[in-house]
Amino acid sequence: MGTTQQDTVPEPKYWHLKNVLTRALDTEFAVGEILPNERELAARFGVARATLRQALEQLELEGRLQRRRGVGTTVAPPRVGVAVDHAAHDWPGAAGDGWQSVDCESTVPPAAVAQLLGLAEDAGAEVFAVRRTRVTQGQSVAAETLYVPAASVPALTAMSSVDAPSGPARAHIVLGELQRLALEGEDRAVELGSARADDAKELDRLPGAPVLVVTTRYFVDGATAAVSMATYRADTCRLTFGDAGDVQISHPAEPVGQLS
Amino acid sequence: MGTTQQDTVPEPKYWHLKNVLTRALDTEFAVGEILPNERELAARFGVARATLRQALEQLELEGRLQRRRGVGTTVAPPRVGVAVDHAAHDWPGAAGDGWQSVDCESTVPPAAVAQLLGLAEDAGAEVFAVRRTRVTQGQSVAAETLYVPAASVPALTAMSSVDAPSGPARAHIVLGELQRLALEGEDRAVELGSARADDAKELDRLPGAPVLVVTTRYFVDGATAAVSMATYRADTCRLTFGDAGDVQISHPAEPVGQLS
Repeated sequence: MGTTQQDTVPEPKYWHLKNVLTRALDTEFAVGEILPNERELAARFGVARATLRQALEQLELEGRLQRRRGVGTTVAPPRVGVAVDHAAHDWPGAAGDGWQSVDCESTVPPAAVAQLLGLAEDAGAEVFAVRRTRVTQGQSVAAETLYVPAASVPALTAMSSVDAPSGPARAHIVLGELQRLALEGEDRAVELGSARADDAKELDRLPGAPVLVVTTRYFVDGATAAVSMATYRADTCRLTFGDAGDVQISHPAEPVGQLS
Repeated sequence: MGTTQQDTVPEPKYWHLKNVLTRALDTEFAVGEILPNERELAARFGVARATLRQALEQLELEGRLQRRRGVGTTVAPPRVGVAVDHAAHDWPGAAGDGWQSVDCESTVPPAAVAQLLGLAEDAGAEVFAVRRTRVTQGQSVAAETLYVPAASVPALTAMSSVDAPSGPARAHIVLGELQRLALEGEDRAVELGSARADDAKELDRLPGAPVLVVTTRYFVDGATAAVSMATYRADTCRLTFGDAGDVQISHPAEPVGQLS
């Protein structure tokens, strides 16, 4: 904060190149097409390889390009709108919420989650962790861990460990128990993150890939009854709030005109 | 989509290093502290420079590190929660919305915005473009362009170009006119993007820096009366929806434990 490097570098080379490449993508290439390799592209546009790579990285950030090892760089299809927030507030697992349960374990939650749930830190109290995935248009777009304290699902907690089912069946019971609680409200935070190894695997990405992390708190009786940490692919997803899910917004991050 | 590279590379070196560095940041370094240079860090952790750089990039994505030319790599403060969606739906410019008007021009909107506004493409119809910035805790966190078709602000449109004020005064009139329309609702989309040159300058970043792009549609009489394209710094901001703005969530993208 407080640097003034922009004043001396008003339009870096990579930025100019990125705009040139954007126009080329709009006019010369089709979705799914493989771009020429870096050496050819650098030669065609008369730039250094390092400059080219910076521009390609930005186009990847904007969801215009996909880079995959062994395949090369391809033109990406438009991002898929994924509804995150609905007018009707429901518990996870409500009919038609678009998620599939994969597993459920007992685990000590991350410190940040324990804090949100109001659990004492360092106490090491275990909670149920329901793992779910979300598939949109045949594509795995998100992986979620839903943290539910034992106090929120007393019926399951009362079962002996012998009777309690495991895996998806257990997840089903936890979600079913949640539906019985009166959901007062929920709130969300969205931020940029890098995919954890387990999430990356489900999303078919490498660990560390850029993701949008959505943290949701579910409120019952004035307290947080459950916390969801969902990881969405940042390359292919556009998160929608309200009723924007069905509207196609093509590459809004890349306006054609400049205002200044 | 469809690659299986993760199966053969379950835990890349950079990922392991990132987790080791995260623990070091939690225990050895204070916010604002400058990290040792890359050579020293690579030596200390016994990794190649390339591996180190990948891990540092991920920590930057997660908002744990800031890298600035001429300063080096410093430990970032926790991200600032910025409220994007309130329970009370209001027009931009309503009292206490946290934005400051900078300018207002007539411009041909980007194709994606023209489409959202229902304007015929290629018609080249101009709209008012109000530029605004948002400052939170003394930090410039977002830059916005609010696109308003002439039809939404008839009083201003009726003024002759001689009488019409320019700059912030004109922005003030456009926003004032909007308040007179009955706002039926709004929806939003959030996605990853790279900062345009003009936005980057206002956000004190270099062009191409990762940003969260929030597209908002404002509805009047069943049609879209205005479209906002807001660009939030992805390194320092956490976007909140609902009432999460006042809650401190420290680095939720970086859970301490692993579930699998």
